[in-house]
Amino acid sequence: MKYTEEDLMSLIGRIPSLNKETMDEIYARWDKKAKPLGSLGRLEDMVAVLGGIFQTVTPDPGKKAVIVMAGDNGVVEEGVAQSDYHVTTTVTCNMTHEDATVAILARLNGADVFPVDIGMYEDVDCPGVIPRKVCHGTANMTKGPAMTREQAVEAVWTGIHMIMDLKKQGYGLFATGEMGIGNTTTSSAVASVLLDCPVEKVTGRGAGLSSQGLVRKIHAIKTAIAVNHPDPEDILDVISKVGGLDIAGMMGCCIGAGAAQVPVVLDGFISSVAALAAVDLAPGCRPYLFPSHCSAEPAGKMVLDALGMKAYINAGMCLGEGTGAVTAFHLFDTALEAYYKIPEFEQAHIEAYTHLK
Amino acid sequence: MKYTEEDLMSLIGRIPSLNKETMDEIYARWDKKAKPLGSLGRLEDMVAVLGGIFQTVTPDPGKKAVIVMAGDNGVVEEGVAQSDYHVTTTVTCNMTHEDATVAILARLNGADVFPVDIGMYEDVDCPGVIPRKVCHGTANMTKGPAMTREQAVEAVWTGIHMIMDLKKQGYGLFATGEMGIGNTTTSSAVASVLLDCPVEKVTGRGAGLSSQGLVRKIHAIKTAIAVNHPDPEDILDVISKVGGLDIAGMMGCCIGAGAAQVPVVLDGFISSVAALAAVDLAPGCRPYLFPSHCSAEPAGKMVLDALGMKAYINAGMCLGEGTGAVTAFHLFDTALEAYYKIPEFEQAHIEAYTHLK
Repeated sequence: MKYTEEDLMSLIGRIPSLNKETMDEIYARWDKKAKPLGSLGRLEDMVAVLGGIFQTVTPDPGKKAVIVMAGDNGVVEEGVAQSDYHVTTTVTCNMTHEDATVAILARLNGADVFPVDIGMYEDVDCPGVIPRKVCHGTANMTKGPAMTREQAVEAVWTGIHMIMDLKKQGYGLFATGEMGIGNTTTSSAVASVLLDCPVEKVTGRGAGLSSQGLVRKIHAIKTAIAVNHPDPEDILDVISKVGGLDIAGMMGCCIGAGAAQVPVVLDGFISSVAALAAVDLAPGCRPYLFPSHCSAEPAGKMVLDALGMKAYINAGMCLGEGTGAVTAFHLFDTALEAYYKIPEFEQAHIEAYTHLK
Repeated sequence: MKYTEEDLMSLIGRIPSLNKETMDEIYARWDKKAKPLGSLGRLEDMVAVLGGIFQTVTPDPGKKAVIVMAGDNGVVEEGVAQSDYHVTTTVTCNMTHEDATVAILARLNGADVFPVDIGMYEDVDCPGVIPRKVCHGTANMTKGPAMTREQAVEAVWTGIHMIMDLKKQGYGLFATGEMGIGNTTTSSAVASVLLDCPVEKVTGRGAGLSSQGLVRKIHAIKTAIAVNHPDPEDILDVISKVGGLDIAGMMGCCIGAGAAQVPVVLDGFISSVAALAAVDLAPGCRPYLFPSHCSAEPAGKMVLDALGMKAYINAGMCLGEGTGAVTAFHLFDTALEAYYKIPEFEQAHIEAYTHLK
């Protein structure tokens, strides 16, 4: 069965808000913990939001998953990257046997990796890579739309269904990641349109582009925008014309987070661009999304700012694949461990602190 | 045997620099890893520095320790805190049986907690609290020096010896933490003097002070500085007059890091103030120190800036005890895991990236 744009808008309309009462109750529980009030800062908020999402004062996300959307980008023809689609294929397959960084860091953080072939150029016979190919890479966006609107919608639904399927399997804390040579080019294009910001300001060297390559990349993005006239008021128009299948798939994960009522942790620049697109289309999914780190890509912080998010981790990472997001899983473990293990004042033999003005 | 200030200056003079060749070799190894060059950012630097400290391209810190310096502050008489010395005692003892937050988070991060009674007001019979009492709390600094210069030197040596003793026991990654009601007051006093910055700008509500309490706190700090005339050019003068035993002890940990050639991870505001004092006295210890998080205390970022450090974690924490530092231990685990486990390009079947200009 094909899911349509109409189905998508209908799903978006049904995203519930967080349970505020539960959140308040969690804050009240924090205040009884034997430590200065509010002194775990945003970790306290984190548990409150998890409670608001799961509708319980004892949230337990369960298993952790990193969904890695892998797709190729036709714009690579323009010389905007140091590598080509072979690397997309190889790294995606490497994720299934811990030869890719995200797989190594996922294990360290107790998470499972789900690489999704949402549109790699090559066909792979690699057990562990989930086959959800919308098409064999996108078209070269400097010559026309990267994909059709229908393909973008299909990719969004792919992300939504990944979340829903994994939720059924007991997963309750998700990270979005991506793999796709050329995807900082598409992300910068989408960021430029959504943030209404000059291409030069939102474009960086991705995975190590030369200065000449950077000039080509900026030129390609400008050409793609000029040729396609993406409409900033119509997110699916933007994503289909100058985006990528990975971005659309991660958008779907964000929207799916709201629909399935599970938390999704964003990775860096590309993942945050997808979230920004998701939130533009489906503002109701915003409370289900958490930042992780701030990418070293120039627009990393700009996109987080636009989302109203502040990174937890600043380590100058820009590897992608979901590596920053899985690293931030540890902060969720930390917050929950503190919430469940810190005794109340009485048990700790300490007089309670009180909120003073 | 008593160690003197002269012994201290002699030790400081012998702090070696990091091994730059080893660091360069580690960066070269990172460049062979199958991922975009430099894409793990500051995590790559972290491993390089660890290698420079341990003088090996395969650094392995070994066991992790949080040294928590616990001491009381006479200035609490001035109504600068919501609690009193009973809480210092109780929380310090709670650290030995996981009723204190640092103990809970240390276990989560595979670290052991070493609470040190460097000057609690009360005498405790609590196995696990290391008895190194310099005196029964400091004097009220609004009426004279908090301690003698000799006591400050003794507290610094206590920190140095803690590092040296634990190194012998196989510990190789340290965090500094503290417990002591009134210690944001002393820290703000030291920060004001060392940063040459108005007291109002570096003073916050600590563990939940009221607005009236904040006024008293600022007044107490101003009085202490006016009464004692600490000499900003003479760090031990500053620490003994308006500092605390915990600060002096953590200073010792930082100096000890350089002397014993081990890495020390700073916690938040108080720990960073101690580091700033240590680096002023012993600039050679700076390369052995790592930041962790940025405290929510107003001067948290200012002190890190003065140290030339950028926090890895921004979670709005301000609990103290070393909680932020142990949380950042995970980033060391992450960096080392990536360094040892990411395959080289050839193994990963990917053509190597090259540094381009």
